[in-house]
This record gives sequence, C-alpha cells and structure tokens, in this order.
Amino acid sequence: MRLRNVKNKENIMNEAHSLIRDPACFKGKWSEFFHNGNPIYVEIGMGKGQFIIECAKNNPEINYIGIEKYDSVIVKALQKIEKKLDNLVMVRGDASFIQDFFDHEIAHIYLNFSDPWPKNRHHLRRLSSRVFLEKYDTIFKDKKVIEMRTDNRLLFQYSLVSFSESGYTLKNVSLDLHNDDMPLITTEYEDKFSSEGMPIYYVFVEKDCQ
Amino acid sequence: MRLRNVKNKENIMNEAHSLIRDPACFKGKWSEFFHNGNPIYVEIGMGKGQFIIECAKNNPEINYIGIEKYDSVIVKALQKIEKKLDNLVMVRGDASFIQDFFDHEIAHIYLNFSDPWPKNRHHLRRLSSRVFLEKYDTIFKDKKVIEMRTDNRLLFQYSLVSFSESGYTLKNVSLDLHNDDMPLITTEYEDKFSSEGMPIYYVFVEKDCQ
Repeated sequence: MRLRNVKNKENIMNEAHSLIRDPACFKGKWSEFFHNGNPIYVEIGMGKGQFIIECAKNNPEINYIGIEKYDSVIVKALQKIEKKLDNLVMVRGDASFIQDFFDHEIAHIYLNFSDPWPKNRHHLRRLSSRVFLEKYDTIFKDKKVIEMRTDNRLLFQYSLVSFSESGYTLKNVSLDLHNDDMPLITTEYEDKFSSEGMPIYYVFVEKDCQ
Repeated sequence: MRLRNVKNKENIMNEAHSLIRDPACFKGKWSEFFHNGNPIYVEIGMGKGQFIIECAKNNPEINYIGIEKYDSVIVKALQKIEKKLDNLVMVRGDASFIQDFFDHEIAHIYLNFSDPWPKNRHHLRRLSSRVFLEKYDTIFKDKKVIEMRTDNRLLFQYSLVSFSESGYTLKNVSLDLHNDDMPLITTEYEDKFSSEGMPIYYVFVEKDCQ
C-alpha cells in the first residue's frame, strides 16, 4: 500500500518511539527488546495499523511487531497509536528480507490483505508463495502458525494450495469471514470491503517444526 | 437425493445391464469385471448420472463406477444411458459400506454435491469427514485422489480442513469453478446452481499411500 506524501513525515518518524528502522539489529534479541519472554506475533504488511494496534491493546501478554515497507504508510500507523504500548513495535522493512530480521523467535504470522500480485509470472512475490514460506521457516520459533485474510479470490485459492503443498495443515477456513461466527479485529481494508458486501476469505494454518 | 416414485422402476432396474445391486460380490475383482486393468474412478452419490455418463463417454481408457443409494434416483440415471458403455457401471449401495465394495482397487473418487448434513452433530455423516476418509483409505489402490465440488459453503470449508487434517495435500482449489478456466463435465445440480449465478466450489486433493 502506498499513500500520498504525508506532511512532516520525517519529523513524525524521528520522534516515534514505536518505530524500528533497522530491525536486523535486533535479530535474535527481540525478547530482550520487549523485556519479557512473551510470544511474538508479526503482521507482514500492516498497512495503516488498525489491526495490530487493536491486537496489542487487547492482548497485553503477546508482543506484536508490524512490518511495513512504505514510510508514507508507516506514518499513518504511527499517528494512530494513541499512547505508547509496551507490547507493540512497528518496523520499516521489506518482507523479502524478513529472514534478516528474526531468528527462530516468532510464534505467529498475520498476512492481512497482502498484495495479490495477480500476474502468474509474479506469483513468487506473493507473501504466501513457497519462496516466502521458506523464509518464514527461519523465523518461526516452535509451531509455525499463519493466519491470512484477503478479499482476493485468486490469491486465496493460490495460498490454500501453497500452504498445503508446503506441509501446513488447514485448521480453519472461512469463505465469508464476516458471516461466520467469529470474534473479529479488523483491518482498514477489511472494513471497507466488508461494508461493500464483499466476502472476506480467511484461513488459519499450522505446521509442526521438524 | 430422493425422487418421487418412478413408474416401472423394478422393470427398468431388472433389465438394466449397467446396474449392480450387490457390489460386495465384486470386492477385489473389479478389474476382472471390466475385463481390463484400466484405472477405476468412483463417483459417490452420482445422482441422476449426467456427470459420470459423460466422463465414461469421454474417457474410454478409464472405468467408472457410480454409486447411488436411492432406487428412484438410480432409475433416472439408468434411463439416461443411451447405449451400454463397457467402461461404466452403476451400483445401488450406501457409501457407509463402501469398504465392503472395494479392496485397494480405486484410483480416484468424485464427491459431487454431496449431502451437506448442515447440523454440527451430524458432521461425521458428511462424505468428506474423517470417518469416510478412513473408509476410502481401504479402497484406494496407489495414490489417493479425491475431487470434490459443491455449492455449499459450509460443507466446502469443512471439507478443506478435513482433507488437510487427514494428510491430503490440496493441489487445486477454485471458489468459482465456472469462472475459472477449466474444462468441465457438469452434474445436473451444477447446471442448475451455476445458471442461477451461484458459485461452485471445487477442490482436488491427493495423498500418497504410506
């Protein structure tokens, strides 16, 4: 997600206590960073941050890291944090290098409304492709758990097959998340699509570490 | 699927060369029955038979067995066969006893528009439940292959999880089969639902024999 330039972007980013610009410095040391041994959940492509901020507010016993590539988007997320949360940090980074940010210390990955990369020849750029699943193998701590939601049918179909072929087991699937009976923290995208009556696809997968 | 009583049902069934009333007699001997070693594909709950008859016409190198529980439905399917096909037979039988009909001799199972058994307490009656998948384990020959299609969202969600938890790998998924680019032989149900604009869900799963 890109946004138009935000005024005072640099000032906001410089003053933000919840922002990490060089996550590789904390590789293998995230529990030290958070000053506790709580499980660490990562949202890759957090966008404007609504989802992960709400998660962090609701679950103080879990540490959250939101990753986002674009400064102009991160700034929006930073502005949304009303008061500093000890269990939330935002990372400016490209998921292509996620194996440089973490070393077997992540419990859970969220992929919310990821870029669908609709052209077949770009399929390995999708965050649920085997290329990325192999990177995630190096950042998960114990059991590998991924939760994905999207409004994009083709991305969802592709992802179900990709997860399955990479040895993940599907534990929960919804083809219309907002009409199934589940408690929900939503993303900004999701609120928009769902209010337009579009179904939200959801899958929860897990895989034991070998 | 049940239908109203069909006139001359008994006469039609008695004269039908393509009907087997006691499939257990051929357990382990289906290749002898077909007089060849071609792979054997089974449709469980073939309904009025359009799908399996078209498959048999189009693929003479594959043997097809359609299973249906209700006489009144089988009769409709028998009437639909224009001329006897050497590679097609219809079986009057209850899928709950499928392990009594076959012994490690089936290559492929079709589950088309199966009864969704919508109540949670009935979930083990669904043809994609672990109870049935365990029965299918005893009838598959080599690689286990199941193709499913349905218009029922809840059954489809349930089935994806059930297949995955039973060790099947998803190889292909469509959440709108008739708008994806696939060649199609359809069922009667499918023609009706699809013409009404309802999406048809489809999954192809496979599992290597241990």
